[in-house]
Amino acid sequence: MGLPDLVAAARAGDRRATARLITVVENQGTGSAESAELAGLTKGGDALIVGITGSPGVGKSTLVSALIAAWREQDLRVGVLAVDPSSPFSGGAILGDRVRMADHALDPGVYIRSVATRGHLGGLAATTGAGVRLLEGLGFDVVIVETVGVGQAEVEIASLADTTLLLLAPGMGDGIQAVKAGVVEIADVYVVNKADRPGADGAVRDLRAMMSLVRREPGEWRQPICTTVASEAKGIDDLVAAIAKHRDWLSEGDHLADKRRRRAAAEIRARVDAALRERFRVTDELAAAVANGETDVASAARSVLGDTG
Amino acid sequence: MGLPDLVAAARAGDRRATARLITVVENQGTGSAESAELAGLTKGGDALIVGITGSPGVGKSTLVSALIAAWREQDLRVGVLAVDPSSPFSGGAILGDRVRMADHALDPGVYIRSVATRGHLGGLAATTGAGVRLLEGLGFDVVIVETVGVGQAEVEIASLADTTLLLLAPGMGDGIQAVKAGVVEIADVYVVNKADRPGADGAVRDLRAMMSLVRREPGEWRQPICTTVASEAKGIDDLVAAIAKHRDWLSEGDHLADKRRRRAAAEIRARVDAALRERFRVTDELAAAVANGETDVASAARSVLGDTG
Repeated sequence: MGLPDLVAAARAGDRRATARLITVVENQGTGSAESAELAGLTKGGDALIVGITGSPGVGKSTLVSALIAAWREQDLRVGVLAVDPSSPFSGGAILGDRVRMADHALDPGVYIRSVATRGHLGGLAATTGAGVRLLEGLGFDVVIVETVGVGQAEVEIASLADTTLLLLAPGMGDGIQAVKAGVVEIADVYVVNKADRPGADGAVRDLRAMMSLVRREPGEWRQPICTTVASEAKGIDDLVAAIAKHRDWLSEGDHLADKRRRRAAAEIRARVDAALRERFRVTDELAAAVANGETDVASAARSVLGDTG
Repeated sequence: MGLPDLVAAARAGDRRATARLITVVENQGTGSAESAELAGLTKGGDALIVGITGSPGVGKSTLVSALIAAWREQDLRVGVLAVDPSSPFSGGAILGDRVRMADHALDPGVYIRSVATRGHLGGLAATTGAGVRLLEGLGFDVVIVETVGVGQAEVEIASLADTTLLLLAPGMGDGIQAVKAGVVEIADVYVVNKADRPGADGAVRDLRAMMSLVRREPGEWRQPICTTVASEAKGIDDLVAAIAKHRDWLSEGDHLADKRRRRAAAEIRARVDAALRERFRVTDELAAAVANGETDVASAARSVLGDTG
C-alpha cells in the first residue's frame, strides 16, 4: 500500500494503517524523501492535545481509559501516545496499553500506541512530537500524550501538549514529589485520583496551600483541582469540562500560539540535536585518553568540535 | 586569591576555596584559558565515587550523612555533590544540604555542595562530572553524587559514579517504580532503608525475586541487598563494606577502566552538546513558521543544520 492509500485507510479508522504511518514518521530522517511527502500531514492542526503525567501507581492508565470513554460520547476521535522516557533499557508501557486497549479494542475512533523505545532518530521528544502531529493530521480530535513519572524528560514531553494534567493519588507523598520535580509549575490542571481513599482531602488541601503561595497576574490561568475515582468514572465529566475551559482560555489572546511555537521549537531542537550527535561523535579512543589522564574533558570536547587552540 | 593559592587552601580543607574552585570549573567554557590551568586538577584520580539515587522520601539525605560519618571514622575525606536534575525551574536540594551540613559543619574533611541549577554551560552531567574530577583532584578520598528520583537524567548522572546505590524504602511502591525506570540494571548495590518499618522484608523479597530473573555470567557482579535504618546508623558498616567489595571487584580485570572510559565519554558528550546548542540555534521565527504550518519540523531542522535539499 502506498502512502496516499495508507493515509486514506488511516483516516477511515484503520488502525494498522495508522500504525504504519506513525512508524514511517518516527523513522524518517531529517533528509529523507518521505518527509517531504508526509510534510503536509504533519503540520499539525486544531486537535486538543492533552499531556498526562504522574508517578507510577496513581492510576494514569485507568484515567486515560475513562477520558477516552467521555470524549467518545462526544463523538470525538481520540489518539493516545503512551511514552516511557525513563526506561533506558527495556520498552515499558506495553502492559498498560494492552489493558486499556481491551476497553476500546473494537472502536475505530480510538488509537493507542506505546512510544517506549529510545534511540529513535530525533530522540523521544521529536518522535513523540511527530506522532502527535500525524494523529492531528489524520483527523483525531483529541491526542493524549501520557508519560510515566514526573522527571525532566516527562516535563519536556508533556510540554508538547496544550493542556497538561498532573495526576496525584492520596498517601503516596506525591505532593512533595511534585514540588521537588518542578512539575507543579507546568501543570494546567491538577487531578487527585483515587479520591475515595483516605488522605484525598489532605492532598487537595496541600495543593491549595501550595498554590496560594504563587502570585498570579490578573488574567493568568488558575489551575483547578479536580477529584476523580477513575476506576468508577467518577469526576470525569468535571475533568473534561476543566480541560475544555483551559482550552478556551488558551484560545483567548496569544496563549495557544505561544504554546504551539514553544512546542515547535522543542521539536526542531530535538531533531537538530540528534543529527548533530551523528556528526560530532565521541570515539572510544578519545574517552580512553581522558580516562587515562592523557588529556582533559574540555580539550577532548574541543577536538570533537574541530576547534583549535 | 589566584588559582594556585585557592588550590592550596582547598587541599588544606578550606571550604570557601573549594566552593570557588568548583564555581570556576562549572562555569568554564570549552575554550577558556582557565580550563588549561585547571586541566591538571580535573584529570580525576583514584577516589571512590559513589552514586546514590532513589525516590524522594526514601531517606537519601539521612543515609548520606550516616555514610559520611562512617568514612570519616576511617579518616577519609568526603565530598558530596547533591544534584536535582528534575527541577527545571527552581533550585532544589538546598534544604537537604543544610540539614546534613549541620551534622558535619565543623569538619574540614567534609564538603557538601548542591548542583541544582540547570542551564550551566556543558549541561548538568558535564557540570557534575567536572565537580567530581575537581574534588578528586583536591584529594577527597570519597566523592558522593546524590540524585533525586529515578528517571533517565538521574541514571545518566549516577553513571558518573563507580558504584551506584539504589535506595528503596518499604511501602512506597518503589520496587515497581525501579523496575519501570530501568534503574535496577544500573544499580550495583541495593539499599532497603527504613528497614525497621513494616514491609521491609517484603521489599527485600521482591528485590531477590526480581534479581533471580536476571541471568548472570560467571564472574559478573551480583548486587547485594543491604538493609539500613540510616536515622539510627544501623546497617551502615555492612553497606560501607559492600561498597568496598564492589570497588575491589571493579579493580579486578577491566571493569574500573571500562566504567571510567564510559564516564569520560558521557562528560565529553555533554560538553560537546552544549557547545553545539550555542552554534546551531533554533530561532523564534523558525519555530513560529512551523507552528503556523508554513514549514514542517524536518525542513526546519535541515535549515538550522545548514543542509540543503
